[in-house]
Amino acid sequence: MPAHAPKKVVLAYSGGLDTSIILKWLQTEYGCEVVTFTADLGQGEELEPARQKAELLGIKPENIYIEDVREEFVRDFVFPMFRANAVYEGLYLLGTSIARPLISKRLVEIAHETGADAVAHGATGKGNDQVRFELAAYALDPDIKVIAPWREWDLTSRTKLLAFAEENQIPIAKDKRGEAPFSVDANLLHTSSEGKVLEDPAEEAPDYVFQRTVHPEDAPNEPEFLEVTFEQGDAVAINGEAMSPATILTELNEYGRRHGIGRLDLVEGRFVGMKSRGIYETPGGTILLEAHRGIEQITLDRGAAHLKDEIMPKYAELIYNGFWFSPEREMLQALIDRSQTHVTGTVRLKLYKGLARTVGRWSEHSLYSEAHVTFEDDAGAYDQKDAAGFIQLNALRLKLLAARDRRLKR
Amino acid sequence: MPAHAPKKVVLAYSGGLDTSIILKWLQTEYGCEVVTFTADLGQGEELEPARQKAELLGIKPENIYIEDVREEFVRDFVFPMFRANAVYEGLYLLGTSIARPLISKRLVEIAHETGADAVAHGATGKGNDQVRFELAAYALDPDIKVIAPWREWDLTSRTKLLAFAEENQIPIAKDKRGEAPFSVDANLLHTSSEGKVLEDPAEEAPDYVFQRTVHPEDAPNEPEFLEVTFEQGDAVAINGEAMSPATILTELNEYGRRHGIGRLDLVEGRFVGMKSRGIYETPGGTILLEAHRGIEQITLDRGAAHLKDEIMPKYAELIYNGFWFSPEREMLQALIDRSQTHVTGTVRLKLYKGLARTVGRWSEHSLYSEAHVTFEDDAGAYDQKDAAGFIQLNALRLKLLAARDRRLKR
Amino acid sequence: MPAHAPKKVVLAYSGGLDTSIILKWLQTEYGCEVVTFTADLGQGEELEPARQKAELLGIKPENIYIEDVREEFVRDFVFPMFRANAVYEGLYLLGTSIARPLISKRLVEIAHETGADAVAHGATGKGNDQVRFELAAYALDPDIKVIAPWREWDLTSRTKLLAFAEENQIPIAKDKRGEAPFSVDANLLHTSSEGKVLEDPAEEAPDYVFQRTVHPEDAPNEPEFLEVTFEQGDAVAINGEAMSPATILTELNEYGRRHGIGRLDLVEGRFVGMKSRGIYETPGGTILLEAHRGIEQITLDRGAAHLKDEIMPKYAELIYNGFWFSPEREMLQALIDRSQTHVTGTVRLKLYKGLARTVGRWSEHSLYSEAHVTFEDDAGAYDQKDAAGFIQLNALRLKLLAARDRRLKR
Amino acid sequence: MPAHAPKKVVLAYSGGLDTSIILKWLQTEYGCEVVTFTADLGQGEELEPARQKAELLGIKPENIYIEDVREEFVRDFVFPMFRANAVYEGLYLLGTSIARPLISKRLVEIAHETGADAVAHGATGKGNDQVRFELAAYALDPDIKVIAPWREWDLTSRTKLLAFAEENQIPIAKDKRGEAPFSVDANLLHTSSEGKVLEDPAEEAPDYVFQRTVHPEDAPNEPEFLEVTFEQGDAVAINGEAMSPATILTELNEYGRRHGIGRLDLVEGRFVGMKSRGIYETPGGTILLEAHRGIEQITLDRGAAHLKDEIMPKYAELIYNGFWFSPEREMLQALIDRSQTHVTGTVRLKLYKGLARTVGRWSEHSLYSEAHVTFEDDAGAYDQKDAAGFIQLNALRLKLLAARDRRLKR
Repeated sequence: MPAHAPKKVVLAYSGGLDTSIILKWLQTEYGCEVVTFTADLGQGEELEPARQKAELLGIKPENIYIEDVREEFVRDFVFPMFRANAVYEGLYLLGTSIARPLISKRLVEIAHETGADAVAHGATGKGNDQVRFELAAYALDPDIKVIAPWREWDLTSRTKLLAFAEENQIPIAKDKRGEAPFSVDANLLHTSSEGKVLEDPAEEAPDYVFQRTVHPEDAPNEPEFLEVTFEQGDAVAINGEAMSPATILTELNEYGRRHGIGRLDLVEGRFVGMKSRGIYETPGGTILLEAHRGIEQITLDRGAAHLKDEIMPKYAELIYNGFWFSPEREMLQALIDRSQTHVTGTVRLKLYKGLARTVGRWSEHSLYSEAHVTFEDDAGAYDQKDAAGFIQLNALRLKLLAARDRRLKR
Repeated sequence: MPAHAPKKVVLAYSGGLDTSIILKWLQTEYGCEVVTFTADLGQGEELEPARQKAELLGIKPENIYIEDVREEFVRDFVFPMFRANAVYEGLYLLGTSIARPLISKRLVEIAHETGADAVAHGATGKGNDQVRFELAAYALDPDIKVIAPWREWDLTSRTKLLAFAEENQIPIAKDKRGEAPFSVDANLLHTSSEGKVLEDPAEEAPDYVFQRTVHPEDAPNEPEFLEVTFEQGDAVAINGEAMSPATILTELNEYGRRHGIGRLDLVEGRFVGMKSRGIYETPGGTILLEAHRGIEQITLDRGAAHLKDEIMPKYAELIYNGFWFSPEREMLQALIDRSQTHVTGTVRLKLYKGLARTVGRWSEHSLYSEAHVTFEDDAGAYDQKDAAGFIQLNALRLKLLAARDRRLKR
Repeated sequence: MPAHAPKKVVLAYSGGLDTSIILKWLQTEYGCEVVTFTADLGQGEELEPARQKAELLGIKPENIYIEDVREEFVRDFVFPMFRANAVYEGLYLLGTSIARPLISKRLVEIAHETGADAVAHGATGKGNDQVRFELAAYALDPDIKVIAPWREWDLTSRTKLLAFAEENQIPIAKDKRGEAPFSVDANLLHTSSEGKVLEDPAEEAPDYVFQRTVHPEDAPNEPEFLEVTFEQGDAVAINGEAMSPATILTELNEYGRRHGIGRLDLVEGRFVGMKSRGIYETPGGTILLEAHRGIEQITLDRGAAHLKDEIMPKYAELIYNGFWFSPEREMLQALIDRSQTHVTGTVRLKLYKGLARTVGRWSEHSLYSEAHVTFEDDAGAYDQKDAAGFIQLNALRLKLLAARDRRLKR
Repeated sequence: MPAHAPKKVVLAYSGGLDTSIILKWLQTEYGCEVVTFTADLGQGEELEPARQKAELLGIKPENIYIEDVREEFVRDFVFPMFRANAVYEGLYLLGTSIARPLISKRLVEIAHETGADAVAHGATGKGNDQVRFELAAYALDPDIKVIAPWREWDLTSRTKLLAFAEENQIPIAKDKRGEAPFSVDANLLHTSSEGKVLEDPAEEAPDYVFQRTVHPEDAPNEPEFLEVTFEQGDAVAINGEAMSPATILTELNEYGRRHGIGRLDLVEGRFVGMKSRGIYETPGGTILLEAHRGIEQITLDRGAAHLKDEIMPKYAELIYNGFWFSPEREMLQALIDRSQTHVTGTVRLKLYKGLARTVGRWSEHSLYSEAHVTFEDDAGAYDQKDAAGFIQLNALRLKLLAARDRRLKR
């Protein structure tokens, strides 16, 4: 990238110390104009301080972009992903992965609006996020430059970073002097924690790592029930009350938080090659996944459901690896979306001490036929004699195999 | 099959009313000799009453086979399946499915030993079990006859069944006079309940349906911790104490029972075409699955793990549909088993109020490298600059796509 | 089905002896009104004789449906399938399989138009076609009855069939007195031959079996070149001349016929369980597949192409097994169609003695970049140093595996 | 790698100009000892000149390794791959891809024998081969250094290369003064040509590019027949004569060469991201693939065959991308090998003008049952009535879907 220095850079800016250092470093290293983009993805922090800090660091007001993208995030990224029941390596709900392409999309769009020739992010050279940011950016603009300061600079220790901050009059919050005991990423879907005190996967994560959910032991001693209504695969109402996508996820988060739902301690395989350990809290998402499976159980045909199950791991891997904006993810999305036409109805869940379980589901679109399945007289809905032929023909190739074995043994 | 009546039939015999009626019906309908096979699969019932009842119904002592197959069941069926992390339709641990092929295998073996030309089972014509029993039998002996009385006879109501029993002096336990409110299948891996009061999937299953686990609300208020040790993918010890396969599953069942773990309310797609609703309790299996995933997290390579995830739904479907003894299940098993060479180590789990969660794992075979993943100085284990090239080449095709789009838009 | 006799039946009627016998049998066996449907699928037979024969057998003129469905066949069935590069068991282009759902669709539509309560077909109980006809019919109308006389009647020998024909004044063409040496099915996509003289898979098929293509040895001694143009995955022009779907396939058939292209001798696994041997001639389709692959080579992204390749066998299996009208086929179609947006351009092929080979392809939508791939100076399009990082991170997990092996061996 | 210069390097050495320049460059750039490894993979060149040239360039005799690895190549790499019917992107038989891991394996082994700390190869930074060499090397020795001079040096033009050669007294064959019109790689399985005159994929490859096969137009006017015998998936005899793996492939190459079989003009997606165009000649391999498919048709169960087909694209991709020595390739190999137990028998092929077609196949292990498939009386082998039940239960879920649609439309 490097050959030619960028002239104007759009930076994914949180307002925190690290991205403030990056902001200043871009100005000093490249002498370039910086545009900041700060998004409300539901991470639970105020955005106005980021504006003030950007101004303090010399960013022109017209170069400060602060946006609430929560509805877009849930509607266009989280919900499409949940239609797939996507989990990475069997367990991870992809809370961080799914937010990155949206940020890159806005970075590139702002670059186009402001005439910037580069974008920059604060992800390190060891993680997946650099890949996700950059693949998305390149997929949207093949000529954009992407600057990843953590891979370039020599601020390789906490001491050097703080020194750089002080030299450049970057305010340092008191609690940032010392090193955080672990690293956190948060958005409306989840909070992830990793590094430092969490680096030994044999050791249980300390209680203070969990910030998003109460400890199951501290959750209410009484279960709570909840009804989630879906239309064409997306949640549209809670307990009968229609809500926007982001509102639904926010509500489910509150239910999940209260009951200690959605905690995960995972060692996962990163796209860049090593294994890492993360503590994830996905309270609303965990309820949503359970509910979506619940409604699919009665509204989705077996052939459709099994096909979805078979392609899901690949779909999840694509999102985890940063290929949201790729033809193959879009092809799989087309397949998944096609399956959701009738995934409409309501699921009843029981929340208790860390667990969300489906206990009932109903739908105008149900494929469940009591007439067919009943132990009672089915009035001819199903002819048990058909099963004999069904089994005989399914068995035929197995019989031919067994006959061969017998023949050869003689 | 029908054309020629069987001369000697090996019947899967539980000692209960239904299979006793079948026994008598086979004798009267076909005038054939009956051999009974009663297996202890861990269903929790005594077997000797089955012997007495068989004798009472005129079965010769040498024709009564009663066997404890629990170790074989866990070692050769349950454990191989758990190596795959198999779940059907995202949730079902296949507790009934995995027991059927073992029963068929013994039925066929006993037929060969006793010179019988047919086997018989008590599964109805609406369910999956008939398929599983029969596919397995035909795969092991292409010439065997399989008799499924429920598909043949005219005893199509409870009243007729009881009348037949009375006519034939089959003892009827008092509690069998009325109809059971639901139907139950049990073995060492799980208990399933379905039918009757459970037929409306909108209605929560009544508490009394659950027989294998305490209600999470009644489980201890304190979490319990547990360590499970694996060797090459199979559990071999609990809290450091080595145990046989069946003993381990029995122990895990007790842990799970106590903490209300492993309950599932599922509407699933049957192989024979309709959807049905089942209540499953798989206490030990649920813990085992969580633990197996936990140990794989540090010992299984990402490429291996993702391949396993991709083929798992097909593997689970094969078992559910009754194709345990099929070339494709065996091929997938070869793939899975190949992956487990280093799945050796110990997982620590926390059990609490219905939930089993991995909280730590360690192994001599671990692939987790703190040196690579650390946020601290990694002493050159990983060169962050490599990530730039990695991303550039992963992005190249996406850039070429974006350049095409841009070119065509001009 | 059986319980209640049908009142009015729509019969897939070719005008040949067998379906004429079926027609009469339906009238006599069920005493029902018969509607005939005769389709021009490009099988190369005149349809008017079928009308006359139907009238002769007492069908009312308003109950005789004769239709040219060639354009619909190619546009809505053949072309969508070719977008997938579908081949069954590595080799079979699915020429028979793809025609059945269209016939069933029209049978059911005509049943609705005429108030018929049943449809009937002339496929035997051993083959795949019965399954394809019936699954399609049931998928389009869950209450339709399907009558398959070959599974019901007792006309189980040639002698009995001819006797029935004579008794019922069904005219018998002289060449139908003796038995055909093999059975043929034909449509615009292919001709298949099977049975009788072809039943020993060790024996080469006699020359006279091939009816659709010249023997490669008799094909021109000079190669011929041909250009096929595609738009969004479908062929739209030959040698620059725009044509309708059916016209294109007809033209390609002529090219293929002349050069002996598209012969296949295959033993395949039928859905009903046994293996069968077929001789297929798919002249135009074989050229079309080669050409479609050729244009995808430059216009389809690698990620998209590999995903298509991975799901293709399942897609082909679904069509072969008769699941054209199923949610999972439609989901896969959505995925495939999504991939074809840019599959636009022209392929040049060389036809010679049985072989069609791509020798050139070009497109405005090409992703091929000579700038990137050239052995010459690429002016910075590609930085070879990126490959080092790319390889290092792809190798990382393999290194960690090798390090583990080394560690454990010590 | 770079940090510390290697002390002793094992170089994959062909004896040609390019690898001779690399040899000298390694000596001068790193001042390191060089060990040369020259393998006979069936590329059709003499190896002794490589020894003389190495000696001339100052390599100690004990550091010159020259080996005939043809048998190992075919037995341990080519044959296992052909068991899978592996083709990349539908067409490419992976002739180059499959040779690289063997070379790397020997490079690493020789490094261990000679105490070398690095290996080196002559692949450029744009292609797949660098990836294949290096992934294999790292998978076998996580600490080995790999030197890829083309990615490092500044000899970026032909002129500079020749100047370096002259400065260093490297003999330059007269025909190497000018630039070759395209680049060639050859081994016992195939010859590939790419670059320069082949870089425009719209232009037909000139005749002189093809070096391994006669032009189909020049091939014999009479077809030739050939019988290939397999045992457990591997070819073991031609026309009844048992031969070693490499001998068989050599023989098949001669058959294929004579009949112009195995030519392919392909644009493919490279792992490093761009598309490239290659001309491949795989004469024997093309016959072998056809024959292997032929024998599988009668000996491989449908379930096994379809599973193989489904996983094949991933298997081929792994080999293409250089992941031969990876857990997932080995897992897939275990699956494939498991399927081949009964792939034993003989295939008869017809070779004519570029095409190899199966015309017959037979085996003691055949699953083909004329009794089941026959159009004649099958003596009860198959009960056509079974098909009715088979279809009804396969249709059940489709009927339930259709009933839903109908219900919702009301």
